[in-house]
Amino acid sequence: MTAQDYLNTHKDRFLQELLEFLRIPSISSLREHTQDVRDAATWVQHRLEQAGMEHVQVLETGGHPVVYADYLHADAQPTILIYGHFDTQPVDPLELWSNPPFEPTLKNDRVYARGASDDKGNMLTPILALESLLQTVGSLPVNVKVLFEGQEEIGSPELPAFVAAHRDLLACDLVVSADGGQWDESQPALLVGLRGMCALEVEVKGAVSDLHSGSYGGAVQNPLHVIAGLIASLHDAEGRVAVDGFYDGVRDLTAEDRAMIAQVPFDLDAYKTQLGIDDVFGEAGYSTLERIWARPTLEVNGLYGGFQGEGVKTVLPNRAHAKLTCRLVADQDPAQVVASIRAHIERMSPAGVTVTVTPEESSARAYLMPAKHPGLQAAKRVHEVLYGKSPYYTRSGGSIPFCSLMLDTLGVYTVNFAFGLRDENAHAPDEFYRLSSFYKAQQAYVMLLHELKDAALSNAS
Amino acid sequence: MTAQDYLNTHKDRFLQELLEFLRIPSISSLREHTQDVRDAATWVQHRLEQAGMEHVQVLETGGHPVVYADYLHADAQPTILIYGHFDTQPVDPLELWSNPPFEPTLKNDRVYARGASDDKGNMLTPILALESLLQTVGSLPVNVKVLFEGQEEIGSPELPAFVAAHRDLLACDLVVSADGGQWDESQPALLVGLRGMCALEVEVKGAVSDLHSGSYGGAVQNPLHVIAGLIASLHDAEGRVAVDGFYDGVRDLTAEDRAMIAQVPFDLDAYKTQLGIDDVFGEAGYSTLERIWARPTLEVNGLYGGFQGEGVKTVLPNRAHAKLTCRLVADQDPAQVVASIRAHIERMSPAGVTVTVTPEESSARAYLMPAKHPGLQAAKRVHEVLYGKSPYYTRSGGSIPFCSLMLDTLGVYTVNFAFGLRDENAHAPDEFYRLSSFYKAQQAYVMLLHELKDAALSNAS
Repeated sequence: MTAQDYLNTHKDRFLQELLEFLRIPSISSLREHTQDVRDAATWVQHRLEQAGMEHVQVLETGGHPVVYADYLHADAQPTILIYGHFDTQPVDPLELWSNPPFEPTLKNDRVYARGASDDKGNMLTPILALESLLQTVGSLPVNVKVLFEGQEEIGSPELPAFVAAHRDLLACDLVVSADGGQWDESQPALLVGLRGMCALEVEVKGAVSDLHSGSYGGAVQNPLHVIAGLIASLHDAEGRVAVDGFYDGVRDLTAEDRAMIAQVPFDLDAYKTQLGIDDVFGEAGYSTLERIWARPTLEVNGLYGGFQGEGVKTVLPNRAHAKLTCRLVADQDPAQVVASIRAHIERMSPAGVTVTVTPEESSARAYLMPAKHPGLQAAKRVHEVLYGKSPYYTRSGGSIPFCSLMLDTLGVYTVNFAFGLRDENAHAPDEFYRLSSFYKAQQAYVMLLHELKDAALSNAS
Repeated sequence: MTAQDYLNTHKDRFLQELLEFLRIPSISSLREHTQDVRDAATWVQHRLEQAGMEHVQVLETGGHPVVYADYLHADAQPTILIYGHFDTQPVDPLELWSNPPFEPTLKNDRVYARGASDDKGNMLTPILALESLLQTVGSLPVNVKVLFEGQEEIGSPELPAFVAAHRDLLACDLVVSADGGQWDESQPALLVGLRGMCALEVEVKGAVSDLHSGSYGGAVQNPLHVIAGLIASLHDAEGRVAVDGFYDGVRDLTAEDRAMIAQVPFDLDAYKTQLGIDDVFGEAGYSTLERIWARPTLEVNGLYGGFQGEGVKTVLPNRAHAKLTCRLVADQDPAQVVASIRAHIERMSPAGVTVTVTPEESSARAYLMPAKHPGLQAAKRVHEVLYGKSPYYTRSGGSIPFCSLMLDTLGVYTVNFAFGLRDENAHAPDEFYRLSSFYKAQQAYVMLLHELKDAALSNAS
């Protein structure tokens, strides 16, 4: 019996197991579900044991636990660490769900439940692939470790310390993440880049108290005028960030990079219609996808001060605030970007007010994996067989700190290899996962492990 | 017996009457005190009858009532309308009061109570002056009307319609307001100018919903960036309003105006220390008092959009708001100022967002009374006798819509003739009124009515 035969034979059982897994309300953000997250860890632990994995263990992080297992019997072969998460988003607004979110419902070859697509459906598939190999061939083509976590949906606060403390246990040649998805049902994609991030807050303080705008207006600095001027000074009219040093280290897009991005279909009219805007706007000289995927940005996320109620209040407020985040690309240094913005704001601040710039602690470097990396090439070959076409090389404007974490701490790249699709309502009511993806993913993981055999996984970028 | 003898003889009774008046909790802003405001009107009505005034009546406005009375027996003499208000501010925070706010307390030759200075103490004094004349001489040197209102502290919403509907009843040659005060205990002041006001709101709308700053940041207009740019464009670096047409109609300060303002003492260091700022800021070429008293301003009173909580939220918000008020000087037209700002903002608004400018309904022209007006000159002569020195000619950066209302509707100027002082905690806990002011004001009103006899009250400005 081949692994694929095994997957076919046990198809119904695997689906029932997915439903069982989805019934655990493992919402990591809500204290009352703490035990449910732990129950999900236990469920994963047992499922890995049943699959035939070794050294299966639930490990403490200080918060929600992780589950580790391995099977390390492929001498002279690379070691692959498979990642996923068994926690879920909350379910509110509950009234918008067609069925209870933790009572999985099968309909039109989809399974509806919170966590179906993000990430239990995806996460279960490599376990089933491992079982299909171990229970038929009795071995794996490469060495495999798995790391499944229970705090991804709250930003994995304890994961960096855990990874740093378990460098040897987690040491590997490549990470494969079972969290994410493909372009659409018929088109595969490989994620090669993620933007990094840094954040800071600006406060402008004027007088000791709010002032009457009649008695003081026109005679003292208005912190709202000052902060507006500071924010306006951060960009030029062409959409470029006007902060000295902001672009230091930015890796320019090569002709090859631009060609890869241009290959990805993008319908500008549909984009504008969907957003309800009459035009896009961004850094001159770049396409919309290039702006989002490959150029750094500085965005004000919040701006506030003074009166926000109905009608008129003749106040000259004494405080103004702005919250800023930057999305970074390779090879910007988050600390250097924060320092350059701080220097700019301090230089632009007028007399009559006190301006304070406070960096937020959390920051992340951008992540960029070479398209020719043998890990990506292995995934590409699987895609080509399963879909009959080559994957798009995509990036994300957002940040997945996990990829940078593994690169920075363990020195290894992460191939995103999961089969969720963008319409599956992740983080929203009526989340679902396609059963076709569930079956395809199991097969894909069997194929990927074979493709990674003998791969020269070097991290030279 | 002279009027002054009468005031001396009845001093104790008058003080007891003030305490009685202050015991009425006539808070106009609170619905549960509606009857108390009406009781205060009735009290004033009876007090005017007792003084010997004629045609005393409580008149309806649609809201809190007004009290009218007259004594029109001075043939060929001007008619003076005396104004004041018998409503008060609320009392919260109550715990900061040393005595209950409506149980007037005498201490150190002061009476402590809500409304003592603003405006019951001031308002009662012309009634006592009228009584002292009517009960001794048996006549008044000029014709006198009084108009006391009960909604000043809520912005006199029904007063404009009431005045317009009672043009004949209220017709006069000069208004004298018993609401306001002097520079300090030994220094009189005459208020000759008040700034006007107009207000508007700016809204910037971007996409149909808030967006993820990772997925969209850098590719679409951020309404917070747009509003910051718009606000920053409203002033130049020298503090001048950079809106075409904003200064249209502004009456330049004459050398005489500047000399009058320069005569008023102003301690810049004390001002900065009191406000806790390292420097003042305003329109280049003008002193701080000139900026506040005689130059128009544009102030943002509120600015907001996006995330205002703790920490970081990677949102690209789809809405931003700014609330603006302008202080206007003679002879700016509020509607024209609003139109010029709207045109500026519309012209500066970029593609990719929708910018809406909404004028607020309430607006007021600036008020400027010629220093040589015989009404002011009469008051000046009283000041010189009572204080032994000439008054400062002051202005206010704020707006008193009443003065513009009487000028626009009845065509008459208002002499502010009241004796409150700036340290008397008007609108604050432990409001008080000096008994010395109470006595001085009674005498001053007797003198003023004599000084206005034969005055050539012309409104040519």
